[in-house]
Amino acid sequence: MPPPNEYFNVPLRRVAIGHRDEFQQPGAVKAALAEFLSTLIFVFAGSGSGIAYNKLTHDGPSSAPGLISAAIAHGFALFVAVSVAANISGGHVNPAVTFGLFVGGNISLVRGILYIIAQLLGSTAACALLLFTTGGLEAPGFSVSGVSVWSGLVFEIVMTFGLVYTVYATAVDPNKGEVGILAPIAIGFIVGANILAGGPFTGASMNPAVSFGPALVGWSWAHQWVYWAGPLIGAGLAGIVYEVFFISHTHDPVPADF
Amino acid sequence: MPPPNEYFNVPLRRVAIGHRDEFQQPGAVKAALAEFLSTLIFVFAGSGSGIAYNKLTHDGPSSAPGLISAAIAHGFALFVAVSVAANISGGHVNPAVTFGLFVGGNISLVRGILYIIAQLLGSTAACALLLFTTGGLEAPGFSVSGVSVWSGLVFEIVMTFGLVYTVYATAVDPNKGEVGILAPIAIGFIVGANILAGGPFTGASMNPAVSFGPALVGWSWAHQWVYWAGPLIGAGLAGIVYEVFFISHTHDPVPADF
Amino acid sequence: MPPPNEYFNVPLRRVAIGHRDEFQQPGAVKAALAEFLSTLIFVFAGSGSGIAYNKLTHDGPSSAPGLISAAIAHGFALFVAVSVAANISGGHVNPAVTFGLFVGGNISLVRGILYIIAQLLGSTAACALLLFTTGGLEAPGFSVSGVSVWSGLVFEIVMTFGLVYTVYATAVDPNKGEVGILAPIAIGFIVGANILAGGPFTGASMNPAVSFGPALVGWSWAHQWVYWAGPLIGAGLAGIVYEVFFISHTHDPVPADF
Amino acid sequence: MPPPNEYFNVPLRRVAIGHRDEFQQPGAVKAALAEFLSTLIFVFAGSGSGIAYNKLTHDGPSSAPGLISAAIAHGFALFVAVSVAANISGGHVNPAVTFGLFVGGNISLVRGILYIIAQLLGSTAACALLLFTTGGLEAPGFSVSGVSVWSGLVFEIVMTFGLVYTVYATAVDPNKGEVGILAPIAIGFIVGANILAGGPFTGASMNPAVSFGPALVGWSWAHQWVYWAGPLIGAGLAGIVYEVFFISHTHDPVPADF
Repeated sequence: MPPPNEYFNVPLRRVAIGHRDEFQQPGAVKAALAEFLSTLIFVFAGSGSGIAYNKLTHDGPSSAPGLISAAIAHGFALFVAVSVAANISGGHVNPAVTFGLFVGGNISLVRGILYIIAQLLGSTAACALLLFTTGGLEAPGFSVSGVSVWSGLVFEIVMTFGLVYTVYATAVDPNKGEVGILAPIAIGFIVGANILAGGPFTGASMNPAVSFGPALVGWSWAHQWVYWAGPLIGAGLAGIVYEVFFISHTHDPVPADF
Repeated sequence: MPPPNEYFNVPLRRVAIGHRDEFQQPGAVKAALAEFLSTLIFVFAGSGSGIAYNKLTHDGPSSAPGLISAAIAHGFALFVAVSVAANISGGHVNPAVTFGLFVGGNISLVRGILYIIAQLLGSTAACALLLFTTGGLEAPGFSVSGVSVWSGLVFEIVMTFGLVYTVYATAVDPNKGEVGILAPIAIGFIVGANILAGGPFTGASMNPAVSFGPALVGWSWAHQWVYWAGPLIGAGLAGIVYEVFFISHTHDPVPADF
Repeated sequence: MPPPNEYFNVPLRRVAIGHRDEFQQPGAVKAALAEFLSTLIFVFAGSGSGIAYNKLTHDGPSSAPGLISAAIAHGFALFVAVSVAANISGGHVNPAVTFGLFVGGNISLVRGILYIIAQLLGSTAACALLLFTTGGLEAPGFSVSGVSVWSGLVFEIVMTFGLVYTVYATAVDPNKGEVGILAPIAIGFIVGANILAGGPFTGASMNPAVSFGPALVGWSWAHQWVYWAGPLIGAGLAGIVYEVFFISHTHDPVPADF
Repeated sequence: MPPPNEYFNVPLRRVAIGHRDEFQQPGAVKAALAEFLSTLIFVFAGSGSGIAYNKLTHDGPSSAPGLISAAIAHGFALFVAVSVAANISGGHVNPAVTFGLFVGGNISLVRGILYIIAQLLGSTAACALLLFTTGGLEAPGFSVSGVSVWSGLVFEIVMTFGLVYTVYATAVDPNKGEVGILAPIAIGFIVGANILAGGPFTGASMNPAVSFGPALVGWSWAHQWVYWAGPLIGAGLAGIVYEVFFISHTHDPVPADF
């Protein structure tokens, strides 16, 4: 748990700036703005790729090329969104990531809520911009397809577990070394890979902000709870597992100046 | 603003050479040559992929595989074009990037104009080479498709904002750390991701040089202003936003030898 | 061969943590848990992409987009799986890699067996989770298709040779430099590339755990021996070739503090 | 030009090992073996992806997914092939790269010939292995398609210019910084991007070894000279341009211990 005077701590800031612990802690508002803009950039490209696919196929059914397009758009854009915010806010770009870090004691409650609000606003802004720039087309909403809602829930849990476990291993773990580019690439790629598996079943959201924006702009809330419960449960599990098994045991031996 | 004696400064040179501030500043002509060659390499592969797709499909309609091909060709080639010029010119490869850096006070007017001329010449040379090597096929021009020209304009503004915001966060921000490979990958990937969203609507240029070359060689100027106004507005906004919110506030505390 | 007091050595740990040789050696159980979770994450996305493709095409025949989807899913997910375990277990995620490292004297027999058990359990857990989350669909099994079983065996040998040769060159070789991100990217990409070649012939497993999970959950063991013999032979050959030609000759001149 | 006592110099060795100039120079035979194995791994995946595509489509015509598959297979596998040989031979994997480095005075004639022989043998071995493992299918040969042979020649010249220019900028240039992973990624990605442009016209070889293996194993030599003349001319031009404009001018100011 962070000490009280680090209430607005920025745990993921280590990702990209290495040893520079003397660097002044950026303010929470600046961090929230970074989360807003990163989520906007991410959702604009990601959800935009879904609209583009629907336009090209005249709303035809999903297909392997459509899934590949979604995987690349989300994977690449998330890599960028995490990278550009890494030094400012830690680059969460996802309420589930923020929650998973909160569960492990790596972000405070207040800052976490601020981040999540910024992420939801960023996703909403992206979907509103897409509505205008595409001449009225709506970002495709998420829903469980062809399987029970419980299967869909577990699908989102497992995929988000993998995502937040990756965040912990590459960006939070104090033993992770100094390779700052590893974290954003790994985070982008696990989302891209999981979309190729979960896309036809749940849409592979792994991110409540990603499913909130299209739901709000298109006012369609079916299954919305799945896209909050699944990612939050998976993220919480990942935070607990990683902290208990891989971080707690090695906290003490690490020297203070690590 | 750079001091007068750094009139021909190379702000992005930091991207790849890390601590070597003692390194001699390369001359402006050498930098312009690097921009010319990088833009040539980028547009040759990028626009060439469009010609190749048209050949394979006998000028059939756009499709998801065609969009993926364009995204990979542009994303990979832009990564390379930025990387190979990073140490010499900063690797702009895009008049909008150069303009966005000028707006933020990171490149001088004279050097900026020199870069933009070199970029336009590089794109034109690439399209002329493609005309010969493909036996007379023209690089596909850009135009707004299926939406109003104002929607297309905003589409280009939003996408280029994301691109130049990425340039600022990964290559200009003095707090960005030392991970030199992050910038070219992020720049290539955001363009690849945005193509998957904007491709069917505006062609997703984000780069006046990319749309200028095909327009000149094919002498087709419809909507050309959109591909100058959109990227320049988006780039200017990104430069202002990043400088005001994320750089200005931290300029002072950073030690001089940063 | 490692000295007796390094019985549970972690040769690949160097991959991501650089100079930190003073870091305490993680326990074997923790390492096995890391292998279990990494293999689970890898197989869930990889085999899941095969189920997703079958769902989208209504069990239609393989195609180029299906192969690309499999290559990206496995390549990206393996990169992540190796990255997240690199600091804990070395990130083998593959019994053939563990065997190839054992042949070259880079992991002990006991620890190697522990790793392999964890990898097989991780793959099985992934396939069981896929069975539930997809509403009863089974992960596609591996079999030799259109060529003799001997051709398939050699195919797996050659591809796994390339994979484990890559592991040696980028993660084991003491002359490999400090670029810790190179190893997981190279390991993920060689698997992705080989899937594009071997996919239609053998499924391009290169990994006994990847073929074991679907076989156990679907109880289908045809050709299973090919997916053990091929990868293990290829891995063993790579370990011997790399140790004999590229490591042994340079062991002595390397200073002790390398 | 290298001094006489560095007759068997390894210019690209800097790519991945950074400051370690004290490291013993690997022997030429070991380097040739590394070039042989890297070219084998590269061509096995690259040409194998062409055979796989033909099998999946029953020798149907080229298509966008087929081009994407070829681009990813060659781009990913070349990244790996360069990476695994970087510390041993410099990771040329291409007679045109070796020739381009010879033209710029970065490799000796004798070592260059040794490399090229190893590369041709590696490609031939890969094609022979593919012949066996695919049950008699031949690696697709290269030929100029739909354009004049002179257009095809210039196509190969321009694409190989881009490739070898990339090698110089990211792996040879003494001002390139220390980012060792940049070179193999950039080399792999420029080949992947160029395949998406040149594939339907010349096959986008950029590498005489890649076109030699299939020609020898399939005994089909039509247009073979194009795949030697084009890449060698492009590579030579790149070597001259980069040395004259970007390296020569800065040789002197660089301190001896650079």
